[in-house]
Amino acid sequence: MGLFSKSIKTLDDLFVHTLQDMYYAEQQIEKNLPTMIEKATDPQLKQGLQSHLAETKNQIKRLEQVFQMHGQTAKGTTCDAMNGILDEAKDILGVANDNDVIDAAIISSAQAVEHYEITRYGTLVAFAKQLGRQDCASVLQQTLDEEHATDRKLTAIAESRVNRKAA
Amino acid sequence: MGLFSKSIKTLDDLFVHTLQDMYYAEQQIEKNLPTMIEKATDPQLKQGLQSHLAETKNQIKRLEQVFQMHGQTAKGTTCDAMNGILDEAKDILGVANDNDVIDAAIISSAQAVEHYEITRYGTLVAFAKQLGRQDCASVLQQTLDEEHATDRKLTAIAESRVNRKAA
Repeated sequence: MGLFSKSIKTLDDLFVHTLQDMYYAEQQIEKNLPTMIEKATDPQLKQGLQSHLAETKNQIKRLEQVFQMHGQTAKGTTCDAMNGILDEAKDILGVANDNDVIDAAIISSAQAVEHYEITRYGTLVAFAKQLGRQDCASVLQQTLDEEHATDRKLTAIAESRVNRKAA
Repeated sequence: MGLFSKSIKTLDDLFVHTLQDMYYAEQQIEKNLPTMIEKATDPQLKQGLQSHLAETKNQIKRLEQVFQMHGQTAKGTTCDAMNGILDEAKDILGVANDNDVIDAAIISSAQAVEHYEITRYGTLVAFAKQLGRQDCASVLQQTLDEEHATDRKLTAIAESRVNRKAA
């Protein structure tokens, strides 16, 4: 969230601000996933990240849809949290030098990304319902369900294969 | 994670690195929670954050215990993700100017903190098990259970009172 965020007076302002935070965050995820896909060696992990890249593009479109439904122009505001999560991912991938350990680090980083999305979309759904915008809540819930599914998929890949190979 | 992280060659290195990341993160949470407690007005929220501050101090001790069990000196490494999450929280609390909206923003920020902890402790438990350190996994699992409980408590406070008052 930028240093010069305008004053937040109402839950509606906070809802729009959080939409902007996620609009920026999703765009950063879209930019950074290709490097993770390139560095991953486990085929199931590579394929899972590729699916999530396609999902992310669709999630950006859903945010644009919610901005429009709510009478707002789609725009982002710097999300320090996602920048920090992605900086950590880049840093660790820069110093890890074994393919199986890199896969384990990618899963850990991707799950940190997913959990940030889970918490913010969870908040957005709750705010939308409270504001009487069940229509916006339904669109955002679709993304929240996808994030939960991706997180579970990453856990399954880690537990079934990647961590065992890395150990 | 610092710019000059030493090379990560094994899952054990990645486990220790993630412990250091959380050791730093928990200390930042301990430093920042008092401001959130001070700014919160809903009594149930204030009390919930106070309990979590006490839990955080204990979680730091548990990390020290795991470092020791694993033959490592307890030390932190800069966690850009937690710094980013907490910077966003400070920024939003600096521009929100209605007590009920501030409470809603505190819950949203505290849940972002919880979800970062959930993902990293989840990873630490999985790594510890894979490394054959069931003893470390059990200690870390206690913290993971507490983080899940705190997250659920925050959702309940938001849904039952705070978001309704802020809307």
